[in-house]
Amino acid sequence: MQDIALLAIDWGTSTTRAYAMDRQGRIRNARSAPLGVQRVAQGEFAQALKTLYGDELPEGVPLIACGMIGSRQGWIEAPYCACPADFGAVAAALIRVPSTALAIVPGLICRNDDGVADVMRGEETQILGALADDAPARQVLLLPGTHSKWAIIGPAGIEAFSTFMTGELYALLVEHSILGRLATPGGDDDAFARGVRYSLRSDAAITHDLFSARTLALTDELAPSSVGDYLSGLLLGVEIAAARLWLDRMRLATTRLTLVGAQTLVQKYRTALAIAGIDADMGAEDAAARGLWRIARHAGLLR
Amino acid sequence: MQDIALLAIDWGTSTTRAYAMDRQGRIRNARSAPLGVQRVAQGEFAQALKTLYGDELPEGVPLIACGMIGSRQGWIEAPYCACPADFGAVAAALIRVPSTALAIVPGLICRNDDGVADVMRGEETQILGALADDAPARQVLLLPGTHSKWAIIGPAGIEAFSTFMTGELYALLVEHSILGRLATPGGDDDAFARGVRYSLRSDAAITHDLFSARTLALTDELAPSSVGDYLSGLLLGVEIAAARLWLDRMRLATTRLTLVGAQTLVQKYRTALAIAGIDADMGAEDAAARGLWRIARHAGLLR
Repeated sequence: MQDIALLAIDWGTSTTRAYAMDRQGRIRNARSAPLGVQRVAQGEFAQALKTLYGDELPEGVPLIACGMIGSRQGWIEAPYCACPADFGAVAAALIRVPSTALAIVPGLICRNDDGVADVMRGEETQILGALADDAPARQVLLLPGTHSKWAIIGPAGIEAFSTFMTGELYALLVEHSILGRLATPGGDDDAFARGVRYSLRSDAAITHDLFSARTLALTDELAPSSVGDYLSGLLLGVEIAAARLWLDRMRLATTRLTLVGAQTLVQKYRTALAIAGIDADMGAEDAAARGLWRIARHAGLLR
Repeated sequence: MQDIALLAIDWGTSTTRAYAMDRQGRIRNARSAPLGVQRVAQGEFAQALKTLYGDELPEGVPLIACGMIGSRQGWIEAPYCACPADFGAVAAALIRVPSTALAIVPGLICRNDDGVADVMRGEETQILGALADDAPARQVLLLPGTHSKWAIIGPAGIEAFSTFMTGELYALLVEHSILGRLATPGGDDDAFARGVRYSLRSDAAITHDLFSARTLALTDELAPSSVGDYLSGLLLGVEIAAARLWLDRMRLATTRLTLVGAQTLVQKYRTALAIAGIDADMGAEDAAARGLWRIARHAGLLR
């Protein structure tokens, strides 16, 4: 552990991913454990940290964490930092956990054009980790997931973002709805693309369009094994359609963006974006670790 | 049972509502039982009918039923009848259950302007029962529910309709989503209206708008007891916005429509429609019983 300058933790709802990093920001060691915020009792987070590292938690190495660990249900609440927020703003808003070497990255809050707040917690770190050095002045990053985030990055940092509940709705529909009852495991790329095309062109009608998964199955126009892929396509299509309208209102032409996240999901989004005529670059791997390291460096935390 | 001309059954997924009606279409007796299609094993429907009526199932009285009893999961499949469909078309498509006095009303299928089929089963009977004698040449009926139906009625009968999964999505969100976890029982009319207004004005963004139930609660702009009402408002608002676009494409100005269904739900819709500038008339009570009687009369079934 001699050349370790930072212990960085992506501490989410269900899983904890920990990285030991050197002064150059290289990952020297990575581990993960099912010690997410929902799985650890309040007051037991110090113990969870010991469990995560065993005997290897070295004295004198700074710790930094992002994600739900900073929520009201986490170890200590790190209040949302207002957008626009750059490295300096996030570093200045780090919250120290008393009697530990741990600093927690705050989530972000922004007020969108409709006056309603939007929030993220954990994704801000991935975004700051994924930004390329040669990035254009203003760009869009897309982080798919349970709650998919579209973020506008500019000279002032993370300027604004918009959340879509795509992943959560997909899970709800497949697990609990009448549509899911029809579905069997699939992998039908054509059904996925068909779903994307249908909801991309539709007018504000996803609560109607979803029902087409049922009628197409009833009329034998969609195989049971394709219902899940079709539903997934519908939800990605309407997300892209709505996000594009939002970006238009923010005066950002969307022909290109950067995707950040796990490979399988990112590939699905890349396919859907291509149907919508949007090119997607792939963001850096290990964006959370890179983001934590960059924030720690900005805060002067590196050993 | 001497003056009973028809036994009419609204036979749905979970509940069975049975009406004994005279030659004038008056309900002389009504009963209901938890003998819906999902609660009766395949092959046990004749027994369910006996359970429903006990010793009172008279010889020689015709029986007619609508709803899921005619689906693939029901007693016998009554194939969907194509729109436009009037009383004559529906009466001609009745399916007789062998060795019984029972006729089953078919569901309806229509092809919408986007080429995708839509279906209903049971609602066609409510619609035919709710139509007023002095109805205008072309009108809109709205039947809220698990799967809300907007129907266009014209000289050719039920011309077209569009389904919205509003009720099912509401239940999924409240029971299984992260949003529901925040919610406590409510009854906040202002939160409901706020939800309606927000999603009415939004551009195809319900999968985004839903997340506002979380952020407004996080920022103390929405009480936990108001989250459910707000979500309900969001879903009704987006349904009305999308249905209005559909009606526009069908060249129907929507300033007035008729609501058919249970009082509590219909009142909620009436409030939401008023916010959208649409006046709602209340449809006849017992629309299903009236519809079954009218269809039976058209088919020459009345005793």
